[in-house]
Order: sequence, then structure tokens, then C-alpha cells
Amino acid sequence: MPVTIGVPAERTPGERRLALVPEVASRLIKLGAKIRIETGAGNGAQIPDADFTDCEIVADAQAAVTGADVVLTVQPPEPELLEHMKAGAVVVGFMQPHAKHALVRAMVEKKITSFSMELVPRISRAQSMDALSSQGAVAGYKAALIAANTLDKFMPMLTTAAGTIRPAQVLVIGAGVAGLQAIATAKRLGAIVEAYDVRSATREQVQSLGAKFVDTGVSAEAAGGYARELTDEEKAKQKEALDARIAVMDAVITTAAVPGRPAPKIISREAVERMKTGAVIVDIAAETGGNCELTKAGETVRHNGVSIVGPVNIPSTLATHASAMYARNLLNFLQPAIKDEQLAIDWEDEVFAGAVLTHDGEIRHEPTAKAIEGASS
Amino acid sequence: MPVTIGVPAERTPGERRLALVPEVASRLIKLGAKIRIETGAGNGAQIPDADFTDCEIVADAQAAVTGADVVLTVQPPEPELLEHMKAGAVVVGFMQPHAKHALVRAMVEKKITSFSMELVPRISRAQSMDALSSQGAVAGYKAALIAANTLDKFMPMLTTAAGTIRPAQVLVIGAGVAGLQAIATAKRLGAIVEAYDVRSATREQVQSLGAKFVDTGVSAEAAGGYARELTDEEKAKQKEALDARIAVMDAVITTAAVPGRPAPKIISREAVERMKTGAVIVDIAAETGGNCELTKAGETVRHNGVSIVGPVNIPSTLATHASAMYARNLLNFLQPAIKDEQLAIDWEDEVFAGAVLTHDGEIRHEPTAKAIEGASS
Repeated sequence: MPVTIGVPAERTPGERRLALVPEVASRLIKLGAKIRIETGAGNGAQIPDADFTDCEIVADAQAAVTGADVVLTVQPPEPELLEHMKAGAVVVGFMQPHAKHALVRAMVEKKITSFSMELVPRISRAQSMDALSSQGAVAGYKAALIAANTLDKFMPMLTTAAGTIRPAQVLVIGAGVAGLQAIATAKRLGAIVEAYDVRSATREQVQSLGAKFVDTGVSAEAAGGYARELTDEEKAKQKEALDARIAVMDAVITTAAVPGRPAPKIISREAVERMKTGAVIVDIAAETGGNCELTKAGETVRHNGVSIVGPVNIPSTLATHASAMYARNLLNFLQPAIKDEQLAIDWEDEVFAGAVLTHDGEIRHEPTAKAIEGASS
Repeated sequence: MPVTIGVPAERTPGERRLALVPEVASRLIKLGAKIRIETGAGNGAQIPDADFTDCEIVADAQAAVTGADVVLTVQPPEPELLEHMKAGAVVVGFMQPHAKHALVRAMVEKKITSFSMELVPRISRAQSMDALSSQGAVAGYKAALIAANTLDKFMPMLTTAAGTIRPAQVLVIGAGVAGLQAIATAKRLGAIVEAYDVRSATREQVQSLGAKFVDTGVSAEAAGGYARELTDEEKAKQKEALDARIAVMDAVITTAAVPGRPAPKIISREAVERMKTGAVIVDIAAETGGNCELTKAGETVRHNGVSIVGPVNIPSTLATHASAMYARNLLNFLQPAIKDEQLAIDWEDEVFAGAVLTHDGEIRHEPTAKAIEGASS
């Protein structure tokens, strides 16, 4: 029997992505896989069933996962779906191990092998599997578009018969993948862009995109490509320098995240109140609490003439390409485990060993195991 | 007595622009004008009252226009406002002479001198007063942003660790000021852009922006920089060639307008049904009926997997800069008429003679006069 891959439609409200696109399906089929997809699963990503050639389109999620060796998802599967999966089946998706403890317990019980795309090690070889990065790029691009679309001004300089319009000034806070894409997009649109990151090593990347790096005299570089949390004194110094730049901006895009923790608060109410009437903040970190004190997830708050946009699940607003990039990440992740049309996971491989969340009735991810033990004691 | 300029707040629903901005107010004051602005008039354009230094902020529209020599508006004033204006006062704004017959009659009766910015002759000297162009540029820029924001794909090409995302294909129909700005903005965003206009003379402008001109073999160049209406045969030929290009596009932006008449229907239902799932049409001509058969003004229609966006009053969504450009147009228009702090209109000047709608108890614009006579007979 060749490896069977099941793809249920996403059920999380607002989730428009899908874990598979036709291009990736074809490549999996060439590797010998059989694919079953729930009908209509691609609707949100603008992919008609008919585009999945050589895939079996099935009536519901249960039919997609029953007997499957591998189940691909974007959001964590609903624990009820596990009922229909066989013991030893592999599930790959964003599992949100920090939050979805009931799911983790259910996967342990059902002896599901789960890989969490958030846990893929950020090593060079795994870049092509880095779904946080691919979806972050989507979020950064879209954040700049949202800023441009919300602003009552042009982003580019405009020279007209009636005189010149000056370009907008944009500040991007956080220069990870999302931030860099926001910088690049705002630059494309003709804005004058500044950027800031607590990791001063990002300075060169920022500058290579044609943006100016805001120097606050504080650095918070940490392992894994993320930022460590700052001390109170460092925060005050950072805030002082940043607030002065925020005050003159037309748009500020914030992208600072600490994985598994609430987003750091970088823009205070006072800083917002120093901004110009008509200025815009787009807070990509809205879902984890926001980088701005006034952000409300899923809403646009108006405070003292400033619009604070708190978009949620931004990748879903670019669902076609976000799905394409995510599906390629999954393909690159799975491909080494498919040999002679069979699933064969090499547990010595640091990618599989790093990304595994549950396997063979155990939690394999230390922080999640500790958190769950802590919660039940 | 120096010339007094009154600026009431706009009252048309959804109108966020204002006919004056602080920079232009200062210049009018330097010419000797006194300015009275209704309180809060700049709210929609993000201009606080306090920014209008050396202007008198008054409590209501009546106070703004009473005794004023000149009244500046964006939308046509409400006929009731005329009650408070003195005979011989000058009103400048978009008067919509084709539509606002009751207003025109009221202005005749009250002996108001009205100038309609739509009627400013499109001669070289008057380019700096061309408000249709300045607002068209805003609409074109914003239409490209709306397309990018609605599309479930990236506009730019993206090279990532997981492979390449191909750039979006965008077609702009109508290469007037709005169309050219839409082309420029889609190009900025990294799309592959094609453009089409019935006036084949626009080919070079299109190409100079880096877009490909779609050749349908039909030209409809006419006087005044606008397009004449095509014959049925020409339309069929144009449609055939265009439909083939529309079918492969990710986004189509339509900007074709014939002043004072319904927008030409360029994209049929059948053409929409040939488009790709997930494709987007942004129809700038929505307010005058739309260039697409399925457009609904103020709505986004979803048909057969295609989103058809019909935005209304697009310049108001960029109210700060749209107001700035419009106010400069008004300044450039008025400036020659202000001499020694007094209003002195030179009726020999072809700009004033061309833009006048009513004066001294008469309709001075031939088509409007005929339309109103025809309606009342």
C-alpha cells in the first residue's frame, strides 16, 4: 500500500488557507502518495476541487483522514477528528503546542505522531520547511498594504501639475521575516522607511532594503533568531528613543513576537497620543496581545486621531499564496520521510526530532510536556 | 474690505475631503484673503481646526458663507446653503452640472457666480487647476491598492527558501490619469502590467511606465482628451481581443469614463465567467454605472469565483492628500482673480470663461442650459 495522505478542510473560523495546493499534490503523487481531500477544502484559497487532479475528493473530514498515514492541516485539528484516525498516523500542521493542551493529550492517547511546524528547528537546511517564515512573509507584505490602504495619504512621492506630494514616512518595528517583508513592500510603494529591532544585528538587513535603522542604543539578541525580553531600564531607554521616531511617522508597522509568550508592549498610549492626526499603526502581533497598548485583535481602534489596526490571521487574507508557500514547506518537510512510496521517518534526523510533538503515546516536546504536567498537578 | 473666502464642511454622505488645507489657506491669506471655516470641516481629511492658523473657525456652514465673496466646496453645495450667500458671490467646486439641475436653477435665481471644476478647459496652462486629473490620480493609486488588498496572491514576485512565487498579472483598462496612476502603482508593487485604452495614442505613455499595451486594432480618440463612443462593430472587435487578455489576469482595474454619460460597459458577464477563480476586478467607474456589467456601486460582488469591487468616492479614502491636491487646484484657479486683495474675474480669460456655470442670473454653460430647458419643456 502506498502512503495515503489525507487533507481535511480547515474548520477554524476565518481560516481560509489549506495545507495542500495542486502543484504540491502532484509532487507528492509522483513520490508515490495517494491523496484524499475533503470536498470544498480549497474554497477559501480559491482552489476548486477540480484543480486537484489525480486526487480523490471525499465528502467529509472523516473520509479524508480515515485510514490515512499522514494528515496535513494548517490549524491544529479538532480533537474529535482524531477519533477517525488510526493509531500511529502522522499529523503535520501548526499545532500551537503552547495552547492546545487538550489536543496534545488526545494525540498521546490515540498514539498519533504529530509534528508541529512551529517546532521545526531554524537551521539552514530546514529553511525550505520554515512555515513560520513563509507565513510571516505573507503577514509583513499584507501589513504594509493595510497601512497604505488605511492611510489618508499617498505612500509614494507624487509630482503633479499642481505641485509635489511628499512620500509617507513609515516605521517598521521588528525586523524578522515579517518586518523585512513589510519594509520591502513599503519601499516598493515609495515610502521613506525606518526600521527598528532589539537585535542590532538586523541593522545590515534593514539597510540592504534601503531603510534607515533606528538606533536606540539597546540590543536584545538571543538564540534561535528571536529576541530575549529586555530589562526595565533597557525598555525605558528603547522607548524614549523609539517614541521620538514614532511621533513623526505616518504609519508604524509592528511585528515583534516572542514565541509562546504575549507580544511585547512597545507602543504605549502616551506614544500614540504624541503621533500625528491621521497616523496609522498596523499591529501584526495583535493576536498575541499586540505590540501597542491600545491594539484590539480583529478591530481598528481610533484613538486621538490615530488608527490602530489589529488584524488577525493575516496569512488567510492572502490565502492562495499563503497556502502555496505553506504546502511547499510541508512537502519539503515530508519528502525525506517518503521512501519507496512508504512513510519512513528517520528519528536521527534533527528536523523530525526537533519538530515532533507527540509520538508513540508520549509528549516529545519538553516545554509542552512540562506545561501539561504543571497544569494537571 | 479684503476678499472673504468661506469654507463650509462637506455634507454629502461619505465625503471626507475638504476644499481647503492649511498650506493653501496660508497662501490665500498672503494674497490678502480673509478665511472663514466651519468648525470640524477638516475632520474627515484628518486636519484639526487648530491647523488652520490665521483662519476664523465658525460654528456652522451658514456662518462660513454669510457675506463671503467666494465659497469653496468639493461636492455641489446644498441649494439651501445658497439662501445665506450674497448675490454675486462666487462658488467654486465640483458642481456636477449634468446632474444637479435644481442647484443650477437656484444659483441662477440667487445670481450666484458658479465655477464648476469639471468644466476647467483641459489646456496646458490649466493643468495645475485640473481637479479631475488630481482626483483621478488619487483614484488610480487607490484602485491598485484595493486590487492588491483584495487579491489572495502577492503582487510582486517572491523568491523564498521554499521556491518562487510568480508576480500577479494586472490589466488596466483606460489609460487616462487614473489608469496611468493605477499602472504605475501596480508596477511599483511588482505586478506584470498590461494596459488598454481605446485611444491608441496612449500607447507610448503606457509603455513608458513599463506596461505592455494591449492592441485590439480599434482606436476611438476624441477631442478634449476623452474617448468617443465606439460603434457596435468596433466594440465587438475590441471585446474579442480584450476578453482574451482579461481571461488570464489576476486583477483588472477599469477606469474608462465618458464625462456626463454612463460609463461604457467593457467587461461583460461572459468575460467575467472566463476569468480565473480568485481573480479581482476593481471598477473605478462604479459610480457612473461601472465598466463591468456586474459591478454594483459601493459593493463587492462575487460571481463565479471572481470578486468585482465597485468603490465609490475613492478620493475620499485618501482624504488628506486628495484635499491637498484639490485645494491647490482651487488656489491655482482663483489666484489670477485676486488682485490687490480684491476679487476681479477676467471674463476674457478662457479658463474662467470655460469653467463658469452660472453668472449674473444666467446659465453660462451651453449643454447644461439646453438640458435644463429640455427638462422643463
